[in-house]
Amino acid sequence: MSNETTNLNIKLPEPTLRRLPWYLAYLKLLKDKGEEYVSSTQISKEINVDASQIAKDLSFINISGKTRVGYEVDSLVTVLEDFLGFTSSHRAFILGAGSLGAALLHDNGLDQFGLQIIAAFDVSPAKIGTVINGIPVYDVRDLAKYSKSLDVNIGILTVPVDKAQSVADQVIESGIKAIWNFTPFRIRVPKHIVVQNTSIYAHLAVMFNRLKCNHK
Amino acid sequence: MSNETTNLNIKLPEPTLRRLPWYLAYLKLLKDKGEEYVSSTQISKEINVDASQIAKDLSFINISGKTRVGYEVDSLVTVLEDFLGFTSSHRAFILGAGSLGAALLHDNGLDQFGLQIIAAFDVSPAKIGTVINGIPVYDVRDLAKYSKSLDVNIGILTVPVDKAQSVADQVIESGIKAIWNFTPFRIRVPKHIVVQNTSIYAHLAVMFNRLKCNHK
Repeated sequence: MSNETTNLNIKLPEPTLRRLPWYLAYLKLLKDKGEEYVSSTQISKEINVDASQIAKDLSFINISGKTRVGYEVDSLVTVLEDFLGFTSSHRAFILGAGSLGAALLHDNGLDQFGLQIIAAFDVSPAKIGTVINGIPVYDVRDLAKYSKSLDVNIGILTVPVDKAQSVADQVIESGIKAIWNFTPFRIRVPKHIVVQNTSIYAHLAVMFNRLKCNHK
Repeated sequence: MSNETTNLNIKLPEPTLRRLPWYLAYLKLLKDKGEEYVSSTQISKEINVDASQIAKDLSFINISGKTRVGYEVDSLVTVLEDFLGFTSSHRAFILGAGSLGAALLHDNGLDQFGLQIIAAFDVSPAKIGTVINGIPVYDVRDLAKYSKSLDVNIGILTVPVDKAQSVADQVIESGIKAIWNFTPFRIRVPKHIVVQNTSIYAHLAVMFNRLKCNHK
């Protein structure tokens, strides 16, 4: 495995990108246990993905196993963490310090995955000027000022649904390049803006339906 | 639209189940604005899903629009909320009161979508006996006792990766029927157990990669 692999800016298929963190989580467990090598068959057994799929996913990032011994656990962890961006620091703002926004401000785990929340923004005078888990809450009218001076590239959208589009527009206008959309609203953005939708309430709907169908 | 539709326990395709909350979010906006009818074409324009797909998705839950006027906004909101389980109360435990677990305990929004978090469980003596956002933290060894007496059906898994499988096993043993897995670990469960994976860190990986590729 060469170091160059970690610098490749290749656009991977989304399903692959979503599986790589699963492999990483399992590999880190192996690393903690002191394991040196792992085969795709072994990963496959543990996380229920076809071994051929795993080999294909890993080949995207220029990693190949050695015959008989498999992948080197240590280097694979390093390359995956680097490739996935978890070792870099991505600066982000939270838009909307309501219930879900405040919840994310309490999740120090995001930091370990390369996301650094610098500030939150809100419209409520009761919230502006407060500090949540060490992170300041500013007036959303000052968004453009702060996003430039603080070099922030990601806006995390946790506003109410009826404000989702207008706040997304403000975020983009302020020069931010990516929006992590936690609202169930499908925002419209220009082509060059990255949008990642994470509607945890939609996941709830799937779970409720499966529960109902399993236990009727 | 008949009331019977809301009682149908039909197993919908997951993509449909994930889109229905988008429609609901938009319909609630229209309802707040006092709109009476909406066409699938209008929904389509707003949320970037084909009108034919929308009509198909809604037909799954036995809803059809009227010629010329479209869907009745009010009833569609009611039927969708009911169907998605957002108006029922689903009782849940949080397993792991660490960073992400505590974050979810702070999200009062889950309640509005039909998820009621009754208690959290942890192994840390420093956390056991505390109360986070009004919700008590118990010793994980008492899980089975509480899950029976409190009639809880959902376990929200926010433990560290190396504990994901063993805690999932405990949850299932305690009689809980569904696991909402926030860890990046692929847990293995018996067939009759519902698992919903929500790995927000995997979404981060997708967003980081797209950002890198857009702005190289």
